[in-house]
Amino acid sequence: MSLDFVLVHGSWHDNSAWAPVIARLEQLGHRAWAPTVAGHEPGGNKGVSHADCVASVVAFIKAHDLRNFVLVGHSFGGTVIQRVAEEVPDRLRRLVFWNAFVLQDGESLEDNVPPHYKALFEAMAQPDGGVMLPFPVWREAFINDADEALARRAYDTLSPTPRRSHTDKVPLKTFFQLEVPKSYLNATEDTALPPGEYAWTPRFLARLGLARLVQMPGSHEVIFTNPALLADKLVEAGRD
Amino acid sequence: MSLDFVLVHGSWHDNSAWAPVIARLEQLGHRAWAPTVAGHEPGGNKGVSHADCVASVVAFIKAHDLRNFVLVGHSFGGTVIQRVAEEVPDRLRRLVFWNAFVLQDGESLEDNVPPHYKALFEAMAQPDGGVMLPFPVWREAFINDADEALARRAYDTLSPTPRRSHTDKVPLKTFFQLEVPKSYLNATEDTALPPGEYAWTPRFLARLGLARLVQMPGSHEVIFTNPALLADKLVEAGRD
Amino acid sequence: MSLDFVLVHGSWHDNSAWAPVIARLEQLGHRAWAPTVAGHEPGGNKGVSHADCVASVVAFIKAHDLRNFVLVGHSFGGTVIQRVAEEVPDRLRRLVFWNAFVLQDGESLEDNVPPHYKALFEAMAQPDGGVMLPFPVWREAFINDADEALARRAYDTLSPTPRRSHTDKVPLKTFFQLEVPKSYLNATEDTALPPGEYAWTPRFLARLGLARLVQMPGSHEVIFTNPALLADKLVEAGRD
Repeated sequence: MSLDFVLVHGSWHDNSAWAPVIARLEQLGHRAWAPTVAGHEPGGNKGVSHADCVASVVAFIKAHDLRNFVLVGHSFGGTVIQRVAEEVPDRLRRLVFWNAFVLQDGESLEDNVPPHYKALFEAMAQPDGGVMLPFPVWREAFINDADEALARRAYDTLSPTPRRSHTDKVPLKTFFQLEVPKSYLNATEDTALPPGEYAWTPRFLARLGLARLVQMPGSHEVIFTNPALLADKLVEAGRD
Repeated sequence: MSLDFVLVHGSWHDNSAWAPVIARLEQLGHRAWAPTVAGHEPGGNKGVSHADCVASVVAFIKAHDLRNFVLVGHSFGGTVIQRVAEEVPDRLRRLVFWNAFVLQDGESLEDNVPPHYKALFEAMAQPDGGVMLPFPVWREAFINDADEALARRAYDTLSPTPRRSHTDKVPLKTFFQLEVPKSYLNATEDTALPPGEYAWTPRFLARLGLARLVQMPGSHEVIFTNPALLADKLVEAGRD
Repeated sequence: MSLDFVLVHGSWHDNSAWAPVIARLEQLGHRAWAPTVAGHEPGGNKGVSHADCVASVVAFIKAHDLRNFVLVGHSFGGTVIQRVAEEVPDRLRRLVFWNAFVLQDGESLEDNVPPHYKALFEAMAQPDGGVMLPFPVWREAFINDADEALARRAYDTLSPTPRRSHTDKVPLKTFFQLEVPKSYLNATEDTALPPGEYAWTPRFLARLGLARLVQMPGSHEVIFTNPALLADKLVEAGRD
């Protein structure tokens, strides 16, 4: 079975990080597209809203007239694909949340993070609307499975993320009634959200109702530390 | 060390699913027997009680005069081996619960599942006492590590399970005083019971008191998706 | 990057168990030292205090004039390295807690174990201050991934542990302000503390604040069952 994927990155990232994942997916006979979400390119408009982020992905899908594809969201990207699914439900084959937020109607991403993260982002917000992730947090909590050289090289590809994408309340009026199949891919050493009360699973998995769980070893950033296995697991999560 | 195993399947299954597991156990120098629990064969009497299920396994053990064996229960089979252990404690070398229910005295299996499962089984109960598992639940929550072809092929081997085996209250007057060693084998992507409050571990492991934990990757149905590794892990769980 | 390690064993152990781990670390180009904590050698003074344990490790570090090293504590050893870190903070490169206790100011180790362990240790305490771990608990809950022969061979290397090291209240006045980087290494089948409320993670990981999580398969005693992988994971946990 050959699958088409649309891959939506998380905060601080742009679409460039997907390149080795796409290479592996193509090697396996699949196809993949990866838009950069509005405001997420280096030097982009850091004042964009969550609705702007969603609109940019919907526009990408329509511009390429993509249909019957598996829509993947990583981290913040989960909040984007929830809304994209409401906009183009008939184009979707399946949704895959990879260590991704699953919001409830009217919540923001920051409503779902520990208080110390919220305080950190408030303290670090820039006048242009962007906010950066400090290297020590990245190194210890996001890319804990990398050596230091890879941790630094990957950090150099990041850019400030638009803070409104984290603080805007997101209306989700139809998402939880959509009949599209859903999967959740969880990396077992992902501590970008800390183990316990705030962990990715079971919290966000449970919100999906009936959904397929797939797991792999690694951190929040296996896109850098193990992209080939990430691609293999996206296929396990995305197939019928 | 050569071990003898008696393998008790779960709901919707019969003994045929164990064949590749038994082949691997024999390859490793062990021996294994697998009864079909009363009412669980396709076309069987779907009105049987939990006590009938237990009696059928006890009768199998006595008919083959099996002694000094490792008694394994999968899923619903855990509730059966608890009662079998009360009936023939002196024949047991060790109990192995593989993603299995461990009931407290007087509970039913359905007392230990999430409300949405109980409602599903009530809605799907047939006049003859049988209840089937819907394919979407099987595919996403039970055999999440299979490709679609294997998921469908394995589903075709299932048959309606006797609902009284899930709803009968099970008396367990001596089980928790038995001195037989116990192990719990957990597959880390098993979502037949959802992650969180209702998960297999730590809930059922804790009820056993001192017990050996063994884990393996995979779903509730590694008997279909990885029977050789399941056999290896049953040896790890079952050895002295 | 070549690292220096100081390895602090847990209760019932002495430094001899580290030998295969050290061999592997040296094979990878690192160096390692492993003191025996006061009172922990077979036939030693089982009446020593927690402060005596800490002082013995500090003395070892100063006697060898070790600097810029990764300080590793296993199990009880976590309570020792917390206090050692307070004594010689400028000598540390990083702290690694391997399935280790992380105490809060003024707590004892026994304040952090399930009631049934506390009762067991009280019942088994000897007049000389030592307390042994019963073989069945060792075999099922500590070294659950070993075969019986290895479980018995490893048990024969253990000796009674000084009970005051478990019951003394430990003052930790500066530990939580130290700026030394921290990692937590967790073996995923470690049931020496039972899964659930009392589990190693997330409880002790959370107490460290920002810390790097590394995981590996295995029991509390991978030092016996998989020392080479333990060494590899100590490098992942210990590197910058």
